[in-house]
Amino acid sequence: MSDIGDDRGSDEIAAFEHSDIYAEDGSVRSDFLMHVGAAIADRDTIYLRQHVAGLHASELGDLLEAIQPEQRLALVSLLGKEFDLAALTEVDEAIRLDIVEHLPNEQIAEALGEMDSDDAVYILEDLDEEDQEEILAKLPFTERVRLRRSLDYPESTAGRRMQTEFVAVPPFWTVGQTIDYMREDEDLPDSFTQIFVIDPTFKLLGAVDLDRVLRTKRSVKIDAIMRDTSHAIPAEMDQEEAAQLFEQYDLLSAAVVDDNGRLVGVLTIDDVVDVIQEEAEEDFLRMSGVGDEELSDTITGASRSRVPWLFVNSMTACVSASVIGLFDATIQQIVALAILMPIVAGMGGNAGSQTMTVTVRALATRGLDIHNAPRIIRREAGVGLLNGLIFGTFIGVVAGLWFQDVHIGGIIAAAMLINMMAAALAGILIPLLLERSGADPAVSSAVFVTAVTDIIGFFSFLGLATWWFHVT
Amino acid sequence: MSDIGDDRGSDEIAAFEHSDIYAEDGSVRSDFLMHVGAAIADRDTIYLRQHVAGLHASELGDLLEAIQPEQRLALVSLLGKEFDLAALTEVDEAIRLDIVEHLPNEQIAEALGEMDSDDAVYILEDLDEEDQEEILAKLPFTERVRLRRSLDYPESTAGRRMQTEFVAVPPFWTVGQTIDYMREDEDLPDSFTQIFVIDPTFKLLGAVDLDRVLRTKRSVKIDAIMRDTSHAIPAEMDQEEAAQLFEQYDLLSAAVVDDNGRLVGVLTIDDVVDVIQEEAEEDFLRMSGVGDEELSDTITGASRSRVPWLFVNSMTACVSASVIGLFDATIQQIVALAILMPIVAGMGGNAGSQTMTVTVRALATRGLDIHNAPRIIRREAGVGLLNGLIFGTFIGVVAGLWFQDVHIGGIIAAAMLINMMAAALAGILIPLLLERSGADPAVSSAVFVTAVTDIIGFFSFLGLATWWFHVT
Repeated sequence: MSDIGDDRGSDEIAAFEHSDIYAEDGSVRSDFLMHVGAAIADRDTIYLRQHVAGLHASELGDLLEAIQPEQRLALVSLLGKEFDLAALTEVDEAIRLDIVEHLPNEQIAEALGEMDSDDAVYILEDLDEEDQEEILAKLPFTERVRLRRSLDYPESTAGRRMQTEFVAVPPFWTVGQTIDYMREDEDLPDSFTQIFVIDPTFKLLGAVDLDRVLRTKRSVKIDAIMRDTSHAIPAEMDQEEAAQLFEQYDLLSAAVVDDNGRLVGVLTIDDVVDVIQEEAEEDFLRMSGVGDEELSDTITGASRSRVPWLFVNSMTACVSASVIGLFDATIQQIVALAILMPIVAGMGGNAGSQTMTVTVRALATRGLDIHNAPRIIRREAGVGLLNGLIFGTFIGVVAGLWFQDVHIGGIIAAAMLINMMAAALAGILIPLLLERSGADPAVSSAVFVTAVTDIIGFFSFLGLATWWFHVT
Repeated sequence: MSDIGDDRGSDEIAAFEHSDIYAEDGSVRSDFLMHVGAAIADRDTIYLRQHVAGLHASELGDLLEAIQPEQRLALVSLLGKEFDLAALTEVDEAIRLDIVEHLPNEQIAEALGEMDSDDAVYILEDLDEEDQEEILAKLPFTERVRLRRSLDYPESTAGRRMQTEFVAVPPFWTVGQTIDYMREDEDLPDSFTQIFVIDPTFKLLGAVDLDRVLRTKRSVKIDAIMRDTSHAIPAEMDQEEAAQLFEQYDLLSAAVVDDNGRLVGVLTIDDVVDVIQEEAEEDFLRMSGVGDEELSDTITGASRSRVPWLFVNSMTACVSASVIGLFDATIQQIVALAILMPIVAGMGGNAGSQTMTVTVRALATRGLDIHNAPRIIRREAGVGLLNGLIFGTFIGVVAGLWFQDVHIGGIIAAAMLINMMAAALAGILIPLLLERSGADPAVSSAVFVTAVTDIIGFFSFLGLATWWFHVT
């Protein structure tokens, strides 16, 4: 979350190599942690200023996450004004809140004033309204207005994620004027890759990449080299949608505009990378019925995020159990069925979850849409048939040999084939239907797919057996 | 995969708004597809040149994926030299190979010569050696050497992904000289965000961001404003590791250096975003036992990528079934056990896969390491105990009422508690142990976790029942 090529950061890292801090496996080195721990215990501010204060914000963030919870506040207070608040944009929410709550509002306000607005907003947005107001009140007028504007946009929009510092020039300036302006103005953003072109009302007219400025003669007018900004992002746009534009058009940064087409900020690729990571993580966790959970959550917090899915699953498990209950007489006569039935249901569940995973991912990356859905459905049905034949035969032979009964082998083979076809169709149709009906297929598909494969698995296997052996 | 702010692309998109091509849901608009389809059928090259040739490479890629397979080659051949080969970096591998195989090698060579080297390599690397050589032979000497060098680095390394076009200047140049050089040199990369500083042997000395160049007076020497390049990336570094450096330090581009510290190329954030997406996708698919599968794969291709996991699962399913077999006498006496046992195993499986998903994700993002592992293991055990108590009680009551038997209710409650604790421990310890032993926890965890929860679920439930009811 800190800024692109943040100058201060980059200059100071010079003193530390990545390998001074991180071990081979990417975790913070144990000996570094030991030294820091000892320095905290000894209140050795000299060591901490030399070896910790100069870390890059993300390194300091990793360090905060790696040390013991009780050491965190001590480290922050020992560093005092040398503590780089930008590190808080790199840690779990629980850790961030804990530290922010213990810092005096004055110190926070001062630090936020020096930060780029997107980082400042990232820290401010989690605070309760009272603290927010108190901190905002301590900021200079311009900064306060800028941060308020970002905070006014809903969470997860481009407006909330944007940085309000940018370079903008009028179209009639020459390249020479523009360069002179940048050489003299002290108030430029820490780093930037394009210059925006605006009219006197701040309406966005175009943009020029810095390499274009550098390649052009001083006398050329900006409007002669500016490019169209068809990828300007409305401030209300969802961050995920904005991220897809960045990915599709390989943008480094994009203008954020309000309803009137006026430039209000700039969205940068580093924030977009964070969004991409977050969204991928969300989909990943949701597939297994885990909510918005962080590693720093408590036992009750983590339990709460997982109970809903377990509850829904316990309901569907009871339904499948009642399907088995329909055939209790058959099971009593042929216990082999009870032994084998979890294989039918389980293999169906696995095949279904394979198809479902492919489908959910394809929907998320927009690889699957109405144009190719019929083809993909046919393909999945084909895969289900093929894998059903393979594993139906295999398990049929195993079961037939195990119980020395060719009938049982044939019945389980047929049931496997039926269930794996059903699994394939459920695996693709359920996410597609959920998507159509506006639900998030990543969240709810798994429950339904497992329910279908369990119910069809038990019903086909026990039903076929009851019919074949004429159990009444 | 096409380039950052690719000028040609950006200029031409001006003619098309994103919404002319894409519907609300992000798929290619049906009416656009219809028009294109009709134009292909009518061999209407005028329409295609006007409405398709000018599309951004990624838009053309989406179009190629959306039209019918048989229309693809027709579209490419109708576009002729107007077909932008960069679109091939945006489509599934199967589609890319199909199109490349049907294009004359001359046309490919010519198009590759105009492309940035990273895109050219992306297209070349999938071809068989013979075609590669034939195409390379048709390229000018410098380009050929550059592409060969990239292709010599192993797949998935920074060297393979890098772009070999970059701007490099000596440290004793002034800002003014550097700007003049950029104004005059015709051979600059399409776009760039930093200038590298090298000695006469190409050894990397530092880098300067373009905004820094623009802010600095003409008389200042480059070595006075260059920053240290401690994040230079060895060409042999795995692309995933490189992506982590980009994320951590919010890089836009980074120098790629050979063993002697000589600058050989530059890795850019757009390629890194692709890497991040690919890696997230890989982890996502692997969790469900789906291999490197693409939507365009055939039935047998998709089946092949899923059979291995299904096979391993059929083995573990047989093991769990044999655990049930140990208790066949008990089941014959109390059929309720057969009806209820899938609930115990299934709920354990779900709880285990929740913990496992959190663990695998935390390992992939390096949020979980030796420093916090003990704490997270304790937390997961706590969550398992808590959720085990909640759902043990719940299912115990349901089962007790269902079969009007308080003993069965008590037995299933105890078995659920045992299995959900086991699930929590398996869900965290199995991925951790796999990671320690060098295996990819995303691939193999699920099999083992499900096996553990099935076996412990069946054994605890049926075992407790056998003991309690004194079945012999």
